[in-house]
Amino acid sequence: MKKSLEELAKLVHGRIEGNKDVIICGVASVEEAEEGEITFAVSDKFLNKARKTRASAVIVPLGVKDFSKPIIQVKNPRLAFAKVLELFASRPQGFSGIHPTALIGKDVKIGKDVVIGPYTVIGNETKLSDKVYLSAGVYLGNRVTIGEGSVIHPHVSILDDTIIGKKVIIHSGTVIGSDGFGFAKKEDGSYYKIPQTGRVVIEDEVEIGANVAIDRATVGETHIGEGCKIDNLVHIAHNVTLGKNVIIVALVGISGSSTLGNGVILAGQAGVTDHVKIGDNVIVAAKSGVTKDIPPNRFVSGFPARLHSEQKRIKAIINHLPDLLKRIKKLEKLIPNAVTKNH
Amino acid sequence: MKKSLEELAKLVHGRIEGNKDVIICGVASVEEAEEGEITFAVSDKFLNKARKTRASAVIVPLGVKDFSKPIIQVKNPRLAFAKVLELFASRPQGFSGIHPTALIGKDVKIGKDVVIGPYTVIGNETKLSDKVYLSAGVYLGNRVTIGEGSVIHPHVSILDDTIIGKKVIIHSGTVIGSDGFGFAKKEDGSYYKIPQTGRVVIEDEVEIGANVAIDRATVGETHIGEGCKIDNLVHIAHNVTLGKNVIIVALVGISGSSTLGNGVILAGQAGVTDHVKIGDNVIVAAKSGVTKDIPPNRFVSGFPARLHSEQKRIKAIINHLPDLLKRIKKLEKLIPNAVTKNH
Amino acid sequence: MKKSLEELAKLVHGRIEGNKDVIICGVASVEEAEEGEITFAVSDKFLNKARKTRASAVIVPLGVKDFSKPIIQVKNPRLAFAKVLELFASRPQGFSGIHPTALIGKDVKIGKDVVIGPYTVIGNETKLSDKVYLSAGVYLGNRVTIGEGSVIHPHVSILDDTIIGKKVIIHSGTVIGSDGFGFAKKEDGSYYKIPQTGRVVIEDEVEIGANVAIDRATVGETHIGEGCKIDNLVHIAHNVTLGKNVIIVALVGISGSSTLGNGVILAGQAGVTDHVKIGDNVIVAAKSGVTKDIPPNRFVSGFPARLHSEQKRIKAIINHLPDLLKRIKKLEKLIPNAVTKNH
Repeated sequence: MKKSLEELAKLVHGRIEGNKDVIICGVASVEEAEEGEITFAVSDKFLNKARKTRASAVIVPLGVKDFSKPIIQVKNPRLAFAKVLELFASRPQGFSGIHPTALIGKDVKIGKDVVIGPYTVIGNETKLSDKVYLSAGVYLGNRVTIGEGSVIHPHVSILDDTIIGKKVIIHSGTVIGSDGFGFAKKEDGSYYKIPQTGRVVIEDEVEIGANVAIDRATVGETHIGEGCKIDNLVHIAHNVTLGKNVIIVALVGISGSSTLGNGVILAGQAGVTDHVKIGDNVIVAAKSGVTKDIPPNRFVSGFPARLHSEQKRIKAIINHLPDLLKRIKKLEKLIPNAVTKNH
Repeated sequence: MKKSLEELAKLVHGRIEGNKDVIICGVASVEEAEEGEITFAVSDKFLNKARKTRASAVIVPLGVKDFSKPIIQVKNPRLAFAKVLELFASRPQGFSGIHPTALIGKDVKIGKDVVIGPYTVIGNETKLSDKVYLSAGVYLGNRVTIGEGSVIHPHVSILDDTIIGKKVIIHSGTVIGSDGFGFAKKEDGSYYKIPQTGRVVIEDEVEIGANVAIDRATVGETHIGEGCKIDNLVHIAHNVTLGKNVIIVALVGISGSSTLGNGVILAGQAGVTDHVKIGDNVIVAAKSGVTKDIPPNRFVSGFPARLHSEQKRIKAIINHLPDLLKRIKKLEKLIPNAVTKNH
Repeated sequence: MKKSLEELAKLVHGRIEGNKDVIICGVASVEEAEEGEITFAVSDKFLNKARKTRASAVIVPLGVKDFSKPIIQVKNPRLAFAKVLELFASRPQGFSGIHPTALIGKDVKIGKDVVIGPYTVIGNETKLSDKVYLSAGVYLGNRVTIGEGSVIHPHVSILDDTIIGKKVIIHSGTVIGSDGFGFAKKEDGSYYKIPQTGRVVIEDEVEIGANVAIDRATVGETHIGEGCKIDNLVHIAHNVTLGKNVIIVALVGISGSSTLGNGVILAGQAGVTDHVKIGDNVIVAAKSGVTKDIPPNRFVSGFPARLHSEQKRIKAIINHLPDLLKRIKKLEKLIPNAVTKNH
């Protein structure tokens, strides 16, 4: 495929500086781009590298100037990049139609243009809306519902009663609807299983990475709000509720019954204890541990998680502890009787 | 199903306050319960919410009084909840019999009432006791043994020579018996694989979550004791030994050859280094890292993990470091010659 | 199988002290070894235990003397152990030939002595070199290439366009080539998916544990260098590059576009932020978080990761903070006007 810079600028609502007739035939990273390709700098931080690229054109933030090669200035370079990439590099899906080895239970409703890959197993009373794509070796339990246009990758397990919305993407190896981790301790020290009888509900346009585990509720629902994006190897326990557009980076764990507001971001390897409430737009830094409720719009870090500004102040002093110790020793020398034997 | 409160009280060995003839037709959480349902408060902490529930009855701890609606007082409300939930909300298992697409190796012994789901593959010389339930797409290697009544969910991989006891539950995507992570470093900086020739043994009534990985031993056994409960995305390395009734919460990693006593609890994202011994009933707080042996009955936290009481004292001082710094500065001002140039 | 100690010493290029005619018929750990077996002590730390073993012979580091039983002294006891274990305890692979239930796409090239297990699905234009072993329920997408002698365990998903070298081992449940976690935030707070159009390239002799997730690049490659060893439940994001012989222990996460040099070691539960560069032979301690570039040959720890020597010094002072606080209080008592109301 070939497109002029002018055509690309229209697609991304951008403004060209330089030759609008340059012909672009692909997209690549700043380092790997060759002549004829377009690349991008998401922020000023990446501009220096972008100035040295071999690409024929660069997508840049508004206000960027003085480039030796043609640029497209846009408000949101990442979004523009996504759209250009979509244009040039769409991967076709692998299967089509319903494979003869797919096993389909009783009373299953299947919409138009549904794809069901080989060795996929579908339980009873399941509903697949139009354009649902199930790859190979997918398992759907009984009474599962999947909305229009959703894509389920190989080896995903979706257990009984799970409800999945439209345009949801679930990557390989992920498990939705496994039992929550709930036990009652008995007097002899052993644990008695609490039946996990609730379900998982996933709203529209959610994307879930590879080898994630989202548990069903004990009673009621584990709920993933519209537009949430969940990275690989994330654990979401029973009865957790995520608001809209929540971002959860890899290896995060969220314990039972916790609630996250809209727009929350949990960075990699963060954890959230059970029964806490995190307000809208809270950002939790990597490796942090949230142990209590957090009001909206905070940026927290550390374990226990607190305001990042406080955390930074304390971390700065910690880094100067060797110096602080010296200062105390000096004071002790200057003051008679200050030094005692046990130092 | 409908039960009177009196019938439920008998089931949970509880004492009714209020109308024993109330008819209950379901179980729900305190927030979501409707008239006709029963709910529960596991501890005093949840009593306030329970007082406002729409449920028709509440299971409460002994000693709770003055409820506006009928209550069942029990010694162990979680256990009572589990038993009532079991009564009302049993989920039937999906498959029955041996599916014609199941592939069964040579010299396999299959007990009574065994279920083998579609596309499940079973290696040679494997033994399945009575009432074993294998769901769809399960893989069992050669010489695997599974005890009576155990349930294996979809897409679980159980590799060669694994021994699994009775009433074990293993959730989807979990891998039992993958090779331990053992290599010998060679002089050229590359690594030489140490064959992993041992096995995994899992005792009775163990439950293992989704997408867990438990490695086989290099030589000998990786051993999971009776009644252990393991949450999602847990890593258990080669030659680890867990005692009885050990609780391991999500995203925990236990390194090679470490040994945990009976009743140990590892909270979420904790880690244990290799070759350490953790005594009976030790509790390891979330995100902690155990780096050396821990005597029985300790509550440890932090990294390196130490007694939680010490950890708390130190954390409290860390939180006051900005104040401490001020006090040192004040002392320096009061004492002639205390301030030196490099501060 | 039976071997004399002399034969074993030749195999491992070792020197015998004691009776070279002792007959060995197996390998076991120091604790579990019985008469007739050989065991080993990798370092001086394990020598005391080794002296008490019931084994008939022990492999020990050079320089070890005064053993009550025959020993083989070697330069690299782990390597010697690996080779002896290989000799005594080779596990045969389970399947042979191409199973009739294997589904093979169009234009697939299959070398000599390839094994394809039951219910394995192989996409179009895929190439399997000689002696590739695919177990049961493996999924390979389109245009996947797998080099000679590589072994893929059950339920592994290898998505479109992945390139895998020779003698690679991938354990069960692992996902290679899932979409990278890339989104552009829109003005309404929702996220727009950035297509992930690159691929994953894995060089020769890499071993990857169970339930790992390695994402494809946005554009270009996610690259795993020759000889890397990756433990269970590791997350490797889009566009990450690992050099040669990198060791990544369980539950580590590496964020997008970060680059690790040759010989790097990341201990368990460590994390690396995006776009950083870690130099050759850097060691990152367990649970550390790397937030910026690290020059070669450093040993770093903590979060943010810094030189381990500095980290240790600071940790030591932190442990003495209660004492430090006492010393400040004493100084304040000794100096008039030092104590202010707000303490």
